Amino acid sequence: MAKIQNISGFPEWLPEQRRLEVSLIDRIRTIFESYGFTPIETPAVELVRTLQAKGVVDKELFAVKRLASHDDAEIELALHFDLTVPFARYVAQHLSALTFPFKRYQVQKVWRGDRPQKGRFREFYQLDIDIVARDTLPIACDAEVIIAFCRALQAFEIGPFVLRVNNKKIVLGILERLEIPSTQWQASVTAIDKFDKIGEAGVLDELSSFVGLSRSIAARLIKDAIFSCRVSELASLETRLESSNALFRQGVQELREVIELVPPDLQPSIEVHTNLVRGLDYYTGLILEAHLPQYPEFGSVGGGGRYDDLVSEYLNKKVPGVGASIGLTRLMDLIFSEALVPLPSPSPSRVLITLYSEEQLVSAFAYAEELRAHALPTEVYPRPIKLGKQIEYAARKGIPFVVFLNPESAQIEVKDITTGEQRPVSGVDELVALVLDDKHSL
Amino acid sequence: MAKIQNISGFPEWLPEQRRLEVSLIDRIRTIFESYGFTPIETPAVELVRTLQAKGVVDKELFAVKRLASHDDAEIELALHFDLTVPFARYVAQHLSALTFPFKRYQVQKVWRGDRPQKGRFREFYQLDIDIVARDTLPIACDAEVIIAFCRALQAFEIGPFVLRVNNKKIVLGILERLEIPSTQWQASVTAIDKFDKIGEAGVLDELSSFVGLSRSIAARLIKDAIFSCRVSELASLETRLESSNALFRQGVQELREVIELVPPDLQPSIEVHTNLVRGLDYYTGLILEAHLPQYPEFGSVGGGGRYDDLVSEYLNKKVPGVGASIGLTRLMDLIFSEALVPLPSPSPSRVLITLYSEEQLVSAFAYAEELRAHALPTEVYPRPIKLGKQIEYAARKGIPFVVFLNPESAQIEVKDITTGEQRPVSGVDELVALVLDDKHSL
Repeated sequence: MAKIQNISGFPEWLPEQRRLEVSLIDRIRTIFESYGFTPIETPAVELVRTLQAKGVVDKELFAVKRLASHDDAEIELALHFDLTVPFARYVAQHLSALTFPFKRYQVQKVWRGDRPQKGRFREFYQLDIDIVARDTLPIACDAEVIIAFCRALQAFEIGPFVLRVNNKKIVLGILERLEIPSTQWQASVTAIDKFDKIGEAGVLDELSSFVGLSRSIAARLIKDAIFSCRVSELASLETRLESSNALFRQGVQELREVIELVPPDLQPSIEVHTNLVRGLDYYTGLILEAHLPQYPEFGSVGGGGRYDDLVSEYLNKKVPGVGASIGLTRLMDLIFSEALVPLPSPSPSRVLITLYSEEQLVSAFAYAEELRAHALPTEVYPRPIKLGKQIEYAARKGIPFVVFLNPESAQIEVKDITTGEQRPVSGVDELVALVLDDKHSL
Repeated sequence: MAKIQNISGFPEWLPEQRRLEVSLIDRIRTIFESYGFTPIETPAVELVRTLQAKGVVDKELFAVKRLASHDDAEIELALHFDLTVPFARYVAQHLSALTFPFKRYQVQKVWRGDRPQKGRFREFYQLDIDIVARDTLPIACDAEVIIAFCRALQAFEIGPFVLRVNNKKIVLGILERLEIPSTQWQASVTAIDKFDKIGEAGVLDELSSFVGLSRSIAARLIKDAIFSCRVSELASLETRLESSNALFRQGVQELREVIELVPPDLQPSIEVHTNLVRGLDYYTGLILEAHLPQYPEFGSVGGGGRYDDLVSEYLNKKVPGVGASIGLTRLMDLIFSEALVPLPSPSPSRVLITLYSEEQLVSAFAYAEELRAHALPTEVYPRPIKLGKQIEYAARKGIPFVVFLNPESAQIEVKDITTGEQRPVSGVDELVALVLDDKHSL
């Protein structure tokens, strides 16, 4: 007999867990659509050269090849490792069929070709939104991404989150003002971004030994560029540096314009962190990252930012964009392990019709179809075993109502599994009203 | 610049096509849930040995390996080629956590590691339902699968379909009655199943030259075993053969019991085809397959059947089941190419708020949030270009209503893009009522 074996890094949920995941995805789809994001889906695979173009390291890729072929030279496909690279290829490929600004969301799994490693997912869901435009992208789009992203995070109902925001121009302005050569900017920014992980001493060390800045400039950079404040204090950021330069001021100004468009109820959840750059060199303006203050060890729930260019690799066109992504699977894992959200029942059925005899199947099936036509998920117990066993089945599956079509009394009765109460009902309408009125369960 | 290239066999839809696909999937999910099927999802990959256990030929598998590794001996994962094998592994792995009869649906992509070939999908969606039980599975479950499957097919709203049904015992009974040795049953059944493709002469030839039956027995088998009738004529099937045997009669009887439970509105869509076996040796009772009579060339839309055993490969347990599967991607391809269903708009937005000036962004964003709170997908045009251009954007994205927050008159007006009619509205409630009342668009 074949041994059943977990495949490390490929999570799989039980029905009640999957039902929660599906209902959260549905909720977030509705939110994204309420902002005009349209769903797209791309294949699981891309050409290897498409995936490699963004400078991804090969070891993160899962190649896909016909098992029958033993020629590695044949490998030209790999599973996508994020949804941004496929989206860029999609926009380039379908450019003339799309209307810009183009707003899409994408809910798909992505894969990372890591070696098996404890606590590391190699397959996981991402929920992505992006707005892209031809030539220029208005700053209002940055705000729209922030708002939709925050509304999605709220929809999880797992408590407060903090959205850290920054504008890359702020930190670049500070680098420019300190007359650090632009060849050292990317490395400097990467070091500054690690502040939360390695602390001030660590950043200082990296800036001097790795980037090659003098200790005094490095210390000055840390003092100037690592700063956080509430969005209500953004005005003070503008005047924090003496003789600030235009780039710095532009970054602060853009951030203020974006924040001004964010609804008042969301603003208290937002913090400005000037060191936030998310290590990615393609962000050019807004950068954002969400955290759960109650789970600091968890790290980022998701993030994103603004980029100047999406398709120039394929086309001689300018398509700037702004987007964000939520790492759903890691979040579901946290929700399950910390029981942050009550699990639904393992079955969608709201009603179980018990079966007294084989002869009753036809009428029970007909009654079930009637209830389904009233939007009540219903099943018929398929075999006339003891009623107590049938009720036990409903209880184990979390089916809240059990219906008895008693052939002797010709009376229909319904039992509320939660309260144990059993009562006669006059007909389908009364039964439907009773079940739909139920608040106990999902 | 990188060349953009279609990957043969990996279809990708435009936003309006994907929106139709998503809405059909949602509709079918609701139907499956109304019968108590619960959603599960399994990883894209399984162990190669899990996939190979069902006798699949290697060439159909897409192996997955880290691109960084050049050692084919390391290959242990492959993309699943259907949803049945992963489901069997899931049930075996989580047996003690599940309640039986266990009813699940699964909407996922599957992959076939074919060489690129015109018109052949290598990645496609399947929609699967199955009911499995411990030890024995009541015949009522066969009926439930048929009903849910037919309701799902109806939900596509693409015209009539025909559901061909059979019971494997009917054809096995005929083989037994002709005293054909059981070692020749599987090959005989496979030949008979090809009747619709290769005709009587083709079947006769295969039965005699490949299976090894005498011409006379082969001719007799074809005469007895290739027969079709309406379900209302099932009684005549029972008496069709003189001195029929028990196995044959059991098959007919099971089919009658199942059909009796199918609602009257579905029965005219069902035909009995005694030669239907779908080539798969694991079906043991009910076999079903759906066709679109208006598209005979299209072949099967989906099918399924009853099997005696799901998990014995992993566990010393008996878990019989019955299930069916719809090949969604092929069907979407037909729907698109034949324009069988009107496409929705490329955007989910119902309202576009036009922008008169940058200064208006804050109030326009606030107004949009109000509409979203009333479940109206709304976007704000992000830049104050000419109103005509903004209206054009709405028209191109199929956004049915355009709102004008005229800063001079302080009057809110709404334009119906379809009729061209423009009128003032007093407030959010009136606007919401107007938009929700709209019948034109989705």
